[in-house]
Amino acid sequence: MRICEGKKSMFHVFVHPISKFAIIICLALIFPPPTLSLKSAVNVWPKPRLVSWPKPLARFLSANFTMDSPYHQHLTPAVNRYLSLVRTEHYHPLITPSVKVSASAAPLQTLSIKITDLAAPLQHGANETYSLSISEAGGTAYLTAETAWGAIRGLETFSQLVWGDPPAIPVRLYIWDAPLFAHRGVILDTSRNYYGVEDILRTIEAMSANKLNVFHWHITDSHSFPLMVPSEPELAAKGSYGPDMIYSPSDVAKIVQFGLEHGVRVLPEIDSPGHTGSWAEAYPEIVACAYMFWLPGSDWADRLAAEPGTGHLNPLNQKTYKVIENVIRDVSNMFPETFYHGGADEITPGCWKADPTIQSFLSNGGTLSQVLEKFINSTLPYIISLNRTVVYWEDVLLDDIVKVDSSFLPKEHTILQTWNNGPSNTKKIVEAGYRTIVSSSEFYYLDCGHGGFLGNDSRYDSQATGDKEGASWCDPFKAWQTIYNYDITLGLSEDEAKLVLGGEVALWSEQADPTVLDGRLWPRTSAMAETLWSGNCDEAGRKRSGEATDRLNEWRYRMVSRGVKG
Amino acid sequence: MRICEGKKSMFHVFVHPISKFAIIICLALIFPPPTLSLKSAVNVWPKPRLVSWPKPLARFLSANFTMDSPYHQHLTPAVNRYLSLVRTEHYHPLITPSVKVSASAAPLQTLSIKITDLAAPLQHGANETYSLSISEAGGTAYLTAETAWGAIRGLETFSQLVWGDPPAIPVRLYIWDAPLFAHRGVILDTSRNYYGVEDILRTIEAMSANKLNVFHWHITDSHSFPLMVPSEPELAAKGSYGPDMIYSPSDVAKIVQFGLEHGVRVLPEIDSPGHTGSWAEAYPEIVACAYMFWLPGSDWADRLAAEPGTGHLNPLNQKTYKVIENVIRDVSNMFPETFYHGGADEITPGCWKADPTIQSFLSNGGTLSQVLEKFINSTLPYIISLNRTVVYWEDVLLDDIVKVDSSFLPKEHTILQTWNNGPSNTKKIVEAGYRTIVSSSEFYYLDCGHGGFLGNDSRYDSQATGDKEGASWCDPFKAWQTIYNYDITLGLSEDEAKLVLGGEVALWSEQADPTVLDGRLWPRTSAMAETLWSGNCDEAGRKRSGEATDRLNEWRYRMVSRGVKG
Repeated sequence: MRICEGKKSMFHVFVHPISKFAIIICLALIFPPPTLSLKSAVNVWPKPRLVSWPKPLARFLSANFTMDSPYHQHLTPAVNRYLSLVRTEHYHPLITPSVKVSASAAPLQTLSIKITDLAAPLQHGANETYSLSISEAGGTAYLTAETAWGAIRGLETFSQLVWGDPPAIPVRLYIWDAPLFAHRGVILDTSRNYYGVEDILRTIEAMSANKLNVFHWHITDSHSFPLMVPSEPELAAKGSYGPDMIYSPSDVAKIVQFGLEHGVRVLPEIDSPGHTGSWAEAYPEIVACAYMFWLPGSDWADRLAAEPGTGHLNPLNQKTYKVIENVIRDVSNMFPETFYHGGADEITPGCWKADPTIQSFLSNGGTLSQVLEKFINSTLPYIISLNRTVVYWEDVLLDDIVKVDSSFLPKEHTILQTWNNGPSNTKKIVEAGYRTIVSSSEFYYLDCGHGGFLGNDSRYDSQATGDKEGASWCDPFKAWQTIYNYDITLGLSEDEAKLVLGGEVALWSEQADPTVLDGRLWPRTSAMAETLWSGNCDEAGRKRSGEATDRLNEWRYRMVSRGVKG
Repeated sequence: MRICEGKKSMFHVFVHPISKFAIIICLALIFPPPTLSLKSAVNVWPKPRLVSWPKPLARFLSANFTMDSPYHQHLTPAVNRYLSLVRTEHYHPLITPSVKVSASAAPLQTLSIKITDLAAPLQHGANETYSLSISEAGGTAYLTAETAWGAIRGLETFSQLVWGDPPAIPVRLYIWDAPLFAHRGVILDTSRNYYGVEDILRTIEAMSANKLNVFHWHITDSHSFPLMVPSEPELAAKGSYGPDMIYSPSDVAKIVQFGLEHGVRVLPEIDSPGHTGSWAEAYPEIVACAYMFWLPGSDWADRLAAEPGTGHLNPLNQKTYKVIENVIRDVSNMFPETFYHGGADEITPGCWKADPTIQSFLSNGGTLSQVLEKFINSTLPYIISLNRTVVYWEDVLLDDIVKVDSSFLPKEHTILQTWNNGPSNTKKIVEAGYRTIVSSSEFYYLDCGHGGFLGNDSRYDSQATGDKEGASWCDPFKAWQTIYNYDITLGLSEDEAKLVLGGEVALWSEQADPTVLDGRLWPRTSAMAETLWSGNCDEAGRKRSGEATDRLNEWRYRMVSRGVKG
């Protein structure tokens, strides 16, 4: 898993003429024309690991084209969806492929899908390998996969190979494909702003088109509690933004089902014990520092929260555990996903210190870290008992002030998600022996760069150039290349790199809502999708973001035509 | 026109309670609560110059509410539009106004509109002053304005005062309003990507809602020539992206008419002699360096264009003037606007030097600046003869290498638009005695920050934090506060400041198209709209972007409900 190490490839180069007016993006700056591969008829995103297409030949799909697949509860709907797509999409590439579509060749009649293990569940590590073979003659093309989930990946590839009206598809084509990283996700925060079920489904659909497989749903936070938890209905009834901004159990079931039919796991996060101000609407007695002003002094060290919206669950109150166990149990029942994200980030000393019971504990020689240890030790075993692997944010181990001893975090049941200090914190986590998911804010936070949301900031008053940088905490806006070129295993040994499960881009919603959702996520999320699927290096071992520019432009255009308005 | 000088105001303060969950934006950091004025029932954007509303009282609009206005070709359609809007919008503010709507008060029956000068044309300097008076009793409210264009501004204000179902409106309200700057615009580049007529109309409508008054249409460039010029039909027939990406004369008429009915001037820019590569599709003989690679060496000084897409009109070829005079005449016929934007930016020495006739002129002792002077002197008098004021980009006077002597640019007929070096170039232009329009790229360029579009850039390979800055030329993405707080007359004397006509934000379209248009323009353009209308200072003379945060959030929410998806 070393970076851009330079390996042989079976790519065959075919260069299309580019009209000066058709496209202004210029790759030739770095890569001279002979290494270009515009091949827009094989513009599959993310780029497959191995493509053999020695000649630019294609044939039409039969008007009665069909797909032949074994029945599978979740794959069969996907097959039907892709069958309809390839028949009706009639996509016209930005750059017309100079490919010979043989009118005399018999049209392709069938895509035959073979699955080795039909029973394999959609979970971390599910085999997503597939291969696709389309010959020049014969009525049948072949898609083979170990699992239904690999077949869904292959169906997406097949759909991206089809273009035009009548639909044509390349022939003498062989693709072998499998992801470099098993965990490839998107975080959506539905607490700071609410998103409708349809927004989430549209996002999962676009994720699937990019071969992403984890929708990390940051459901709750201090700002609202939009999830109807059957055993604790007051949490949403009082803590949501309103009755029309609540996800019911049937909404969740619909989203989970949709995810299964798209090969996308739905991973719930119930952030706690911090980020729980909204819980106080139903249970003020279990929430420390709720309803207080978040930054009472001018000193950042005295803050009560990382941003407005205070409130941490109080680990010293037994009622806290009654409520959160109900939440954990119901969430586990609603989400089949075997990972459960517990949050545990940004414990703010000032919040717990503002609570009388915790004050008393501290004045008797206790520490804030012991308070957190009590919380972790009172919840983590319960989550594990429900056959879940727990994901926490890195803070629980790496925070400067409030953290737990690693003995409280069993390595076989705990994954730590990193978001600070780029490769440096990733290394700390894997050196400590934990598996990790990478969401480094400097690379993967999609919400950055839109200006501060905390009111006046005198830095903006400056009329000079360039010094607006830093006026919101994670400036600047992350360009797609920044995301594409990030190497999430940088500086790790081969063994350490194996502990990196993958990565997730994050859309925190202080300044995002359904209106701007697609534009914030896409096409930038596609950049991570390719890097985690097949890497960011070309055959010569160099970063390939230059070569990827035109391909991403073309893919974005196709995504737009499919309804992703990014 | 000094900045934030602190003046008295008639604002009366009324503070609404804010629910912790309703909004996470916190103004109280800088401005303590007593100076807050959330008054969402009077959340008019841009904030009017003077509002008197001593008590939070309101009454309903009558079910038969109507507007009484003199007939005017362009105002009357606006009156009908606003009448329909206030009757049907039923806007529900994010923060419910705690305003007493008197159920016993007689509902408002009529808005009576009085215009002093019905014949005043929509042109630079048209009087946009209006006043609005809504009393507690009586059936009629009054909108008075000097011109139809001021009345349209007042109608917009009236519409933003109405909320709820049934619609209510504040009473005992008096507003006096007028813009600080006469020229408040948006530049849209329709050459690098094409926008449909409906996209342009939607943009003009949103501009009008923000009291902006100039749609600066950067129609043509090196990438495509999408305007059908009747005397030179080959320019678009060959130089556009395709037959479905051409603006016909009737499209232009529709856009101009729509602008008139919204109080928005449509200012055409035909960029020349640079940025004309697309003209070569019809007339290769008049375009220097067309179809060449734009950056043949690694030295930036050797470039043939500022970005891919080469081509400069050849001022030494007489045919150039035959073509461009036809274009200028037809454009003047299509656009009633009295400003004509001639471009004249970014003359790239390498391009003209690549042309044999210009080479010959240079080797005989001529200079590139003389070549440009010939072009200006052969076109500017013709444009002036058509009763147009010419706008050029600042380069024509301030470029380091290729520029003209100011004697070629008569001050009474020429305006220079600035885009480089912020306040420094603005000062240079007004010191030279020219009127200016400010589009400083560091503040007003809306396209910045989305990453380079020129292919590979090794700066993105870095895995360290923060050094991606500068990887595209005008990074970072401009936050709305950066735009809001920019003082376009900074460092100018009072007399110099009078030469600053106003400002324009710019959306260049290398990385923008109709799909992302609204998100790139809005709500950031609203920030400039308020600054140029009523300033960016509060009553105490301090920058008011903190206070504006909640108001802009509320206004953005209303814009979304009106179909602006930004």
